[in-house]
This record gives sequence, structure tokens and C-alpha cells, in this order.
Amino acid sequence: MAHPLQALRDVMAEHHIDAYLIPTADFHGSEYVGDYFACREYLSGFTGSAGTLLVFPHWAGLWTDGRYFLQAEEQLAGSGIRLMKQGQPGVPTIEAFLRASLQPGQTLAFDGRCVDARTGRRYHKLVREIGAKLNHQLDLVAEIWSQRPPLSAQPVWPLDEKYAGLSRREKLRQIRTAMTAQGADLLLLTTLEDIAWLLNLRGGDVACTPVFLSYLALTQEGGVLFANAAAFPAQVLDQLEADGITLRPYDGIYSYANRISPSQRVMLDTRRVNTTLLTSIPTGVPVLDRPNPTEGRKAIKNPVEIENMRQAHLADGVALTRFMYWLKTRAGKEPMTEISAAEHLEELRRASPLYLQPSFDPILAAGPHSAVVHYSATPASDAPITDQGFLLADTGGHYYTGTTDCTRTYALGPLTHHQKTCYTAVLRGNLNLADAVFPAGVTGSNLDWAARQPLWELGLDFNHGTGHGVGYLLSVHEGPQNIRWRSTGKETPLAPGMITSDEPGVYFDGDYGIRLENLVLCVEKETTPFGTFLGFEPLTLTPFDLDAVDPDQLTPKERTLLNTYHARVREAIAPHLPPEEAAWLQAATHPI
Amino acid sequence: MAHPLQALRDVMAEHHIDAYLIPTADFHGSEYVGDYFACREYLSGFTGSAGTLLVFPHWAGLWTDGRYFLQAEEQLAGSGIRLMKQGQPGVPTIEAFLRASLQPGQTLAFDGRCVDARTGRRYHKLVREIGAKLNHQLDLVAEIWSQRPPLSAQPVWPLDEKYAGLSRREKLRQIRTAMTAQGADLLLLTTLEDIAWLLNLRGGDVACTPVFLSYLALTQEGGVLFANAAAFPAQVLDQLEADGITLRPYDGIYSYANRISPSQRVMLDTRRVNTTLLTSIPTGVPVLDRPNPTEGRKAIKNPVEIENMRQAHLADGVALTRFMYWLKTRAGKEPMTEISAAEHLEELRRASPLYLQPSFDPILAAGPHSAVVHYSATPASDAPITDQGFLLADTGGHYYTGTTDCTRTYALGPLTHHQKTCYTAVLRGNLNLADAVFPAGVTGSNLDWAARQPLWELGLDFNHGTGHGVGYLLSVHEGPQNIRWRSTGKETPLAPGMITSDEPGVYFDGDYGIRLENLVLCVEKETTPFGTFLGFEPLTLTPFDLDAVDPDQLTPKERTLLNTYHARVREAIAPHLPPEEAAWLQAATHPI
Repeated sequence: MAHPLQALRDVMAEHHIDAYLIPTADFHGSEYVGDYFACREYLSGFTGSAGTLLVFPHWAGLWTDGRYFLQAEEQLAGSGIRLMKQGQPGVPTIEAFLRASLQPGQTLAFDGRCVDARTGRRYHKLVREIGAKLNHQLDLVAEIWSQRPPLSAQPVWPLDEKYAGLSRREKLRQIRTAMTAQGADLLLLTTLEDIAWLLNLRGGDVACTPVFLSYLALTQEGGVLFANAAAFPAQVLDQLEADGITLRPYDGIYSYANRISPSQRVMLDTRRVNTTLLTSIPTGVPVLDRPNPTEGRKAIKNPVEIENMRQAHLADGVALTRFMYWLKTRAGKEPMTEISAAEHLEELRRASPLYLQPSFDPILAAGPHSAVVHYSATPASDAPITDQGFLLADTGGHYYTGTTDCTRTYALGPLTHHQKTCYTAVLRGNLNLADAVFPAGVTGSNLDWAARQPLWELGLDFNHGTGHGVGYLLSVHEGPQNIRWRSTGKETPLAPGMITSDEPGVYFDGDYGIRLENLVLCVEKETTPFGTFLGFEPLTLTPFDLDAVDPDQLTPKERTLLNTYHARVREAIAPHLPPEEAAWLQAATHPI
Repeated sequence: MAHPLQALRDVMAEHHIDAYLIPTADFHGSEYVGDYFACREYLSGFTGSAGTLLVFPHWAGLWTDGRYFLQAEEQLAGSGIRLMKQGQPGVPTIEAFLRASLQPGQTLAFDGRCVDARTGRRYHKLVREIGAKLNHQLDLVAEIWSQRPPLSAQPVWPLDEKYAGLSRREKLRQIRTAMTAQGADLLLLTTLEDIAWLLNLRGGDVACTPVFLSYLALTQEGGVLFANAAAFPAQVLDQLEADGITLRPYDGIYSYANRISPSQRVMLDTRRVNTTLLTSIPTGVPVLDRPNPTEGRKAIKNPVEIENMRQAHLADGVALTRFMYWLKTRAGKEPMTEISAAEHLEELRRASPLYLQPSFDPILAAGPHSAVVHYSATPASDAPITDQGFLLADTGGHYYTGTTDCTRTYALGPLTHHQKTCYTAVLRGNLNLADAVFPAGVTGSNLDWAARQPLWELGLDFNHGTGHGVGYLLSVHEGPQNIRWRSTGKETPLAPGMITSDEPGVYFDGDYGIRLENLVLCVEKETTPFGTFLGFEPLTLTPFDLDAVDPDQLTPKERTLLNTYHARVREAIAPHLPPEEAAWLQAATHPI
């Protein structure tokens, strides 16, 4: 068998394609892609979670970001594929590269199902401007990948209303009301989290995200769910039928879209639907390009979801606190590694009967690994955990009662003054952001200052967002709100019921890194003649490591914030711990 | 003579105009308008600084903002003109009102010289959408206003390079380089501050803004300044000529624009040039719609301007501090009013040989007047200053060495706990913003939190921006940077050399208001492996009133910030005061 890259070039020649683009994406813009969609990995050998491969007959390049420069360099060695380091000085973007290298009359191609419609439009504009052509209907990898894994079809299961808080019927009613308000007859929903949320169904087709491969076409009268029927228990199919939702084969969405009548006003989000789907809609059909009406509703958790989330964080806090006890009392005394410690934490989480699975690949990073923001231990990199330096643990779980995401950085041995100063600055940022009070209308870009100021004052900073939204037993990264200072002017204001992470950090390449992350719930604080003021309630319940704190660098207010948080942790978690661990927690959360 | 409004309706009928719009604007989008441009006031009797009049044959309405609701209500009484309170619930915008009331086939008209091109385009789109017509070439007020004052033609005078820091030639060179970089052959500059800055000339045609009525057309080889030659001393004309700038009559710009050749690429800012000018350019001429290249350069003060600004603030600080001494020792003991106190402060400023004039109408507001954000005392409203409550003084001056803008709120008698709490919260906001440290790239919308958090924590807020840029002997309100949390996503990052106000406040209608304003210079703090970090240096040098501060509500750090600032004030100002006042300043700035 020819090497996959050569095989691709052979079929490119057959189809008269001069440049073929392979993004890392499924048909739904999911954060992670299943095995079926691992085309870029199949062709390049690069296993990172993000990257785009561009293949010409005599040149191929892989664009990926800073997280993966080292890994990609190793994995691409000898492949003939050039590593294009995104964001580095002098490295062109894919679009700039295409603009410079694609010749008039040549053809760029990609599988339009893997490229969102807005990006697809940009490529279309680009080829038009240089007098080239675009073919977005070619899945060339399908022609050469004989051992391609099948599409995932994990069982779909219903999420009980006691977890979801609202019935499917009520959610459908709300979304149809929103459609009416916007003058839409038909809503095309293709984001898997939105479909799962709306239908109160969950699945297992995307890693760490309990969703199922599907598209939904919703009208006022009913709806069509395009999905693999084999994944649906008969009872679920009956319930869907009762709610007016009928099932059709997964890829039937395209011919369905092709038959939409010009009398129907279609609502969709071109940032979400893929290029092939948008272009399947006949010309003449009015298309309303709007954010999915599910997006904002999903982000604002309902009262049942909120109370459940508190329960999930209680269970998670017990596991995390037991893990901390284990780590702080055993590290250096018995053998443990990043991977074995992650397994131990997973075991502690499984003690909760409502626990389902990790909400993302756990990051346990010892010593210099803690400076790698998205580190994930492999058997090759797996480092021993000793009684020296820091261990950074960024982990989370999916529970029936919701989703958690927590980062703690633990001191395993004596720290330098600089390390304590940095830990304390990150902690101050975390505490100050969680304590923010702000009027309705404020966005995360207005508040990021609170988390970063203690670092900026020291000439420190971190190169990732301070906060992301979190889904309820869906994706742990969920829009539309976030906390990051670089504003687009289109940020969604923070609103009561939203759950967002609060995770400042600081990283010293090759040395160590610190990150401290709580999830916080946006709540209403008070209404005065000056407006309605909002704030945050911490959901995450596990101690910060006082061994890493320099109390002299905390203001009196910050000490109070820390002590109040620790009292909250102690009161919630101690009753669920064995006596010895409860006593340890008492000491680990003592007022400073 | 018919009432002006009736006379207008008569000429509207003659011209077959169904709706006539009269904004408050000159031909240059200036902040204040001269007497010649006071058409809205002439027609309506309303004297406020902002408002738009819309006249139909059987209906007329005046849109204005919250500052002027009371005043407009009084002044419009009996005029038949309806007051439209901008931003109040249920009050349509002018555009929404026109959309609802203008009929297909009808004609909307205005003088396009008084409407910026971007707004003009919106009206054009609006009438097209409803099938109506637009005439933007009608100055109907000119036909009826027989006693119209002439266009201002105050003397133009050169600003010496020791004040401007850069020669006219050097500025012209820089702007021409920017034109080349953007591919522009011709720059049309119509903002009076930009022209004055670029040519190192000043005038007196706009209240409180030493600019002169003019337009500038700049090419690589030379330039044409359209202005009233009678206002220019011969020497200035010679200097301009030597620098390749020739003078033509003020209104010659329109026929000049009309003769621009399609081979010239014209650069202009449609937010700044007026509708008539833009539409005078022949179709086919390529227009680059860009921010004026002068805007950013003007905002970043050069080293000479910065040092001069420090000197201006020293002189201003002496006047302000002497005023504070006078006020704090005499109020309640001798008669004084808002107007007489303003006159006294003006007199103190005039002691500096480099002082020219106020940089805006002084706001001295006693008691309940202090709650009115843009209060300006009139003989009718002029209130006595007693030994009770607060006096808010927001004043500023133009000096050859730059422009100042300072607000202090003084305690004239015993304060309530609530008043001290509010003063202290505003002071904390002022100090914390001035102390901010942030990486290059950060905008004012990221930083506003620092000024507002102490208020938000108490359920308080204020309904104006926290900071505006300040010009050098130009407009006291200057873009492009600002400090306000509502982001458009297009904010200009703060950069070293920018001067911005830091002016949080809080206002209780009918009771009292507090505002504390310093100008701060953006400076580079340090460069670390994490980036270049910026901060602020306070320029304003006069005490905050310690009688209004509750020290228990300041954090230790805030006490240090206050004491450090007061030490700086004391050291700079005391040497310039008579012994008795210097001794008083010592006490007024004692460490707390």
C-alpha cells in the first residue's frame, strides 16, 4: 500500500485538485473528533487535537499551535510534511499561504462537511480573488483510507427531567417561540451539544462529551432528527415520536436541505453549520444567519441544573480533597506518577454513584511539565511524582448532576520565595475575580483585569483565557460567555445562571507552572437605584494549598476571601471524609 | 416677522420638503458650535449644547439627552415643539421616528455640511428603504435667519515649536509617509483639531477650543488650506507658503473636491468629513475610508509636549490648591456663589503667564447642583456657597504648555457617614485606576473595572465614561482612546504618551454628587519575558479633600497610594505658595 500522503496525491491528480485541505473537524464543529474523523492524523501521523494539513502535489504543511510544536516536530519527522507554527513571527496563515501559492485556474478542494460555512465562505472569496476554483464536495480521504473506522454509534440515552430541569416539550416550546420571534419557519441545528440539550438526550460519540452524531431540523409542527437509529433504544424513539420528532438516517440532512422550499424561512448559524449543508439549501430560500436560539438558553442554567451542579461539585470536592490528602501525605513516600495519580483521582471520583466519566483528558503535570498549559501525560512522558516542586492537576468529571472542571497546584516540597510569590499572585487573581461585583451588561472582557492585575503588577502574565463557560453534562467548554480581556465587541454579557471557569495561571517554560481554577456561578447580588448588580458563587469545593501561600502578600480582604472560601470547603466536605482526613482538612483550611 | 419655526415651514413648503432635520453641529463635527451654527437654538429657543430638531409641517420634535431634560422642557414650553427624551423607555430614536412617520414619496432634507458622512449614509439608506427621497443640500435656515451672525474669523496664531515639540515640516513628513503607506494621493482633513495640530497653528473659532475654521487637502507635493485669509497674519501665510501650503477661501473645498481626478486615491474618515463634502467627490474617485492619520499621532504626546504638560499641571495645581485653600478657609465666612468662585479660580489661573483660557465651561456646583453631571451655573441658577455640604468643581485651562482638566469635590461642612462612604469609594476608584499596571494592547474597556469596583461593591455606579483623552491646547475631549466598560471591540489600546482623564463619580439626584478627576499620562513601566507593561503617572497636582475621606474604608495599599500622591502634590506645589498657604497644604496632605 502506498503511503497515505502519496495515495492522497494520486487521487488529487485523478480529480485535478491542486491543493487539498484537511482540517481537524467532524461535521458538527465539535471540540474533539472521533476516530472516523481522524483524517489529518491518518495522513500525517500527527496525533495532536488541533491542526490543519494542506497538501499540494510537491509540498505539504501542517499548521498547529504552540501546544503542539514539539510533538508535531517529532511526529512529522521524515514525513516530508512541513510544520507551520501558527502565530510565530514570519509564519503565514493558511489563507495567506494559499493566497501566495495557489495559481489562477488551479483548484482548491476540501470536504465541506468539515469546514464551517463562515470559513468556507472565506475560502470561496479567496479563490475568487485569485482566479482559482473551489471544490468543497470532495472527501478524498474516503477514497484511500481502506481501514477507516466506522462512524461512532454509541447508545443514546435519555437524561431524566430531574437532572435536566426542563422537559423536552418545554424546551421545544421555548425554542419555537424564539423561532417565531425571529420569523423563522425552520431551524437547522447541527451543534451536537445544542441538540443533546434540547432533546434531553445524551450519547457517547465524541470523546469526553456525551453527545451523539446527529442533525436536527425543527419546525413549528415537528422535527426531523437525522441520526443512526441503531443507537436509539426503542423507548427513546417512542418518546421522540410522541414529541413530534421523527428519525431519519444521519446523512439524510443534505437531501432534506436540498428540498427546502423557498416559502420557508430557514434559521441557522453559519459559524456552526458546515459548508456542505449551507450550500445544499436551494438558492432563493431565505436564510436567517443567527446564533442558535439554544445557545443562550443552554448557557443560563435553570434552577434544577444549578442545584444539581452544586451537588456535583460537592461530590467532586470530596474526591478532589481526598486526592489532595493522599498526595500531600504520600508523595515522596510511595511510588506514584502522573498517570497513576490520575488513575487514583479517577477512582476517587467513581465513588460517587452519579459519576459518569472524565469531562476532559486529565492534566496531571509534575515539575517542568506543569509549565505546559495543555500537557497530557503519555506512557513515554509519564513523570514520577516526588516530594519536590509542584504538581498541577487540571481535571474534571461528568456527573448526572452536572460537569466539573478544577485546577489545583500542589506544593510537594519546600518552595522558593519566587514560587510562593507566583502562587500567591495567581491565588489573588482567582479570589479577586470570584469576588467581583458588577452591573448587568458587563462582559468577561471587562472583568479579566481582576484576575490578572496581581500578576501584571509583578510583570507576569499567562497566555490563555481566564474563563470559559461550562456545559451541563455536555462540553466542558461552552459558549457564549468567556472571560478574556481581548474584546471583539460582541461578547455576551455575564448573566445569572451562567457557569464560568476562573483560572488564572503563570508558566515558566522548562521550570514550573501554576494554575488555580474554580467554576463560579453568576448570581444576582442586589438591585439598587443604580441598577441590578451581579456576582459569583464558587461551585468548586476543595482547598487551595496553603503551603504555597505567602500570607504577607495577601491584603486583609484577600485573607478574608481565602478564609471564607476555606470555611465553606471545610463545612461542605468534612462530613463526607473519614475522621483522619477530616482532621487533616481542618488543618489544611485553617484561617490565615 | 414670522416666528422662526413658521418661517422655516414656509420655506419647506416652497422647496417641497416634508421633513427638515437640524442637528447641533458645525461643518467639522466640532464638540461646540459657534454662533453662526446655532440654527437649532434659533429655531427652538433651546440653548443646550446638544440636541437635534426635526420639523414636519404639523409636528416638530427636539431630541436631547438626560443632561438637558429639565432645561429643554422649560425652554420649549409654548413653542409647539415636542421634547423627545433620548434613551428614555418608549422614546423612539430620530431614525426610528422617521421610519415610522416619513411616507413613501416624501422628502427629508438637511444641510449635509452639518451631518457626518457616515450618519448621512444611514439617512440615505433609511429613505431608500421606505421609498422616500433625501435632499442634503438645503440650508433652509440661511433663507430665514436674517440676523444670522457671521462665521467666526478670530485671529490665527502660530504655536512655537518649543510648545509643539515637532515642527510643521516634520509633522507633514510623517503624515505623508502614512499616506504613502496606505496608498493615498490626497488626504482630506476636516476635523479642526487635526488641522491645528498638524500645522502648529491655533485660533479661536470654537468655544474653549483654540482652533480655526478650515479644511485641509494634503498631497505629497503640497497642500491647500481652505480658510478665511483675513484671520491669518502675513507672517503665518508666508510660513505656510514656505512649507508648501497655499490658502484658498473657506468654502472653496467643495468645488475643489468636485474637481478631484479619478487618478487620485483620496483618504478620508467618513466619521469626520461631512456628507456634502463626501458627495462632492466625483463618482469613480477611489476613496479610502480610514481614521485620520493625524488622530493617533496627536493622541500620543511627544516628549516636549509631555514635559510641557507636566509644567502646565504644575501651574494649574498651584491655582487649584490656592483655590482649595481659599474655599476651605472662607466658605461660610464671606459671601461667595458658584459664579463668583469660578471667577476667583479663573483669576488664580491667570497668575500663570502661560495661561490662555478655560478649556471648557467651568462646572462649580454647590449642594444639589453637584448631582447634575454637566451643570453650568447661570445667573438664574447661581447658588451661594456656604459651610454646608459639597462643592463640586470641574474646571480646566489651556496653557501654552498644554491643557488641564481637574475635578475635586470639597467638603464645606460636616458630612454624613453615607457622604464619606461615597467620597471614599470614588477616591478608591480614582486611585486604583491610576495605579493599574497592564500589558500593551489593553484598552480602557478592560481597565474601567478598577475605577468602578469600589462603587459597584456598594451598589453604586455612575452614568458617564471614566476617562477621555485630552488634547494639547486643543479639545479637552480628544480620541481615540477612552476608559469605559461598554466595548465596541474597536477601542484603541492605551499607549505610552497618551493622556487620559480618570474621573469616577457618584450622583444622587436632588441631593449631592461627587466626582474626582485627575489627568494621567500613560507610561512604560517595565519589559519582562511576559511582555511590556504600562501604567499611569498622575499629571494633576492638587489635594483630595481629606475631610471627606473615611480612612477606615481604605485598604493599606490605598492609603499608601493616597499618601504617595499627596506627598507628590506637597513637594511640587508648596514651594509656589505663600507661607501660610504652604503650611495649610502641609496639613491638608498629611499622611493618613
